[in-house]
Amino acid sequence: MRNRHSDFLTQYLNQREAVSPQLLEAMKYAVLLGGKRVRPFLVYAVGSMLGATLKDLDAPAAAIECIHAYSLVHDDLPAMDNDTLRRGQPTCHIAFDEATAILAGDALQALAFELLCTHPYEQVNSAAQLRLVQELARSAGDLGMCGGQALDLAATGSQVGQTQLEQIHAYKTGALIRCAVTFGLTCAPDVSTETAQALRKWADIIGLAFQVQDDILDVVGDTQALGKSQGTDQQQGKSTYPGLMGLNQAQAYLQQLHEKALHALQGIPYNTQLLQQFTDYLITRDR
Amino acid sequence: MRNRHSDFLTQYLNQREAVSPQLLEAMKYAVLLGGKRVRPFLVYAVGSMLGATLKDLDAPAAAIECIHAYSLVHDDLPAMDNDTLRRGQPTCHIAFDEATAILAGDALQALAFELLCTHPYEQVNSAAQLRLVQELARSAGDLGMCGGQALDLAATGSQVGQTQLEQIHAYKTGALIRCAVTFGLTCAPDVSTETAQALRKWADIIGLAFQVQDDILDVVGDTQALGKSQGTDQQQGKSTYPGLMGLNQAQAYLQQLHEKALHALQGIPYNTQLLQQFTDYLITRDR
Repeated sequence: MRNRHSDFLTQYLNQREAVSPQLLEAMKYAVLLGGKRVRPFLVYAVGSMLGATLKDLDAPAAAIECIHAYSLVHDDLPAMDNDTLRRGQPTCHIAFDEATAILAGDALQALAFELLCTHPYEQVNSAAQLRLVQELARSAGDLGMCGGQALDLAATGSQVGQTQLEQIHAYKTGALIRCAVTFGLTCAPDVSTETAQALRKWADIIGLAFQVQDDILDVVGDTQALGKSQGTDQQQGKSTYPGLMGLNQAQAYLQQLHEKALHALQGIPYNTQLLQQFTDYLITRDR
Repeated sequence: MRNRHSDFLTQYLNQREAVSPQLLEAMKYAVLLGGKRVRPFLVYAVGSMLGATLKDLDAPAAAIECIHAYSLVHDDLPAMDNDTLRRGQPTCHIAFDEATAILAGDALQALAFELLCTHPYEQVNSAAQLRLVQELARSAGDLGMCGGQALDLAATGSQVGQTQLEQIHAYKTGALIRCAVTFGLTCAPDVSTETAQALRKWADIIGLAFQVQDDILDVVGDTQALGKSQGTDQQQGKSTYPGLMGLNQAQAYLQQLHEKALHALQGIPYNTQLLQQFTDYLITRDR
């Protein structure tokens, strides 16, 4: 399942007749080269557990990864985080140039919406397709990911409290993780409100846990395994969980979130084994 | 009709509870402050001529202006055209900062898709709403506007021929003007294929004429009337129609396009008076 979305997206982009070959190359570079693929995996895992077809999930999974990839390209720009290394490779504006990176990010966002509304779905009707578009637009925009990035920028260089830090992450990374789970729900037939609520709760907890682990890895991780420079949060004056509560406390907090996440899955009347494994992976990963 | 889209968008954004107030301010600054509003006007003019309700056209008109505004914000960035003046005001990255301008542009793109799929339409069904999303995604992305911007960047500093220059503009500005006309068509009931074809042809001609006039104004225009610095095309090594064929020839070419555009409107079985007036305005405008 982990390679399915990149196979789909590779094929989709390879069939594309480029207007600007350089721009298409930069888009492929940004979206096809590695990455953990947490969000597309969530779309497939949640959706297929609930009875959606893998084919129907291809477009939502690819769309959400396009949004994630574009946000990294823009985040890495000199005016933002000024990162030169990502997934063990030069960042997009280093491999190409700044203007191309800006445009590639912009075009990847448009591509995400194109994917959502041109896919030959088997079971997802027009009304549900519109809900996918709506969910992605809200989750990616100023009330979601972009809003969180703006909060993060504003907080850089000043120490913030835990409540504010969790608010930043709820938007910056949480919104898109919740969107991935909602995509799985939207593509599936007849999901009960209780199941939907439990899965969204799980999404919020793993979204937070994901960020806590990211912050911990920035302190104890290894640049080679991470594929990006270790220790950059501190250099850039970002507020982090280890910075806020100390490394030991942050690790204990992560364990609590781990248990809460597994607890949220209990009582869901589907086979949640894959989601449990994924919860474990998120907390124990080293990159 | 010219203020309707900005009234709608002002109200929409004023009701918004910001995640990041600074980000929302930057978005409003970019999208609400002046501009010629050619694209929203086209949506209203074409759509209402064909029988769409003004209320249904509000969201498509606002959405396309959000895309146009975001493209200007990103275009003005130091890594792109490095412009400091736009519509007589400091550009977004000057009024705020570069990082905020990048995010405001990104969020305006997401907002465009949100507007399209959350609007309480009167006559536009789900299938047609999806066609609006699809049309905007294609027109804004690498096969449309972004593709044209990449071609334009690649051509900057070298003299290109007329065919290549028209290709650049067909994507860079033409795609969104055609999209505006298609939006009007999509929101209207029962438009014949002949009428749709004639209107798309008209759109392509006025899109080109718009650009030729833009290039001419960059040579003969007045910085104050333009609201942006005059003569920047030449400074930046951009290929232009006056540069390619001389000012007199460019003006003669514009007259030809004017006649062709009016000709394209003949035979359309609706009252095209407003579209004729708009054609005249586009060619005679001084900003």
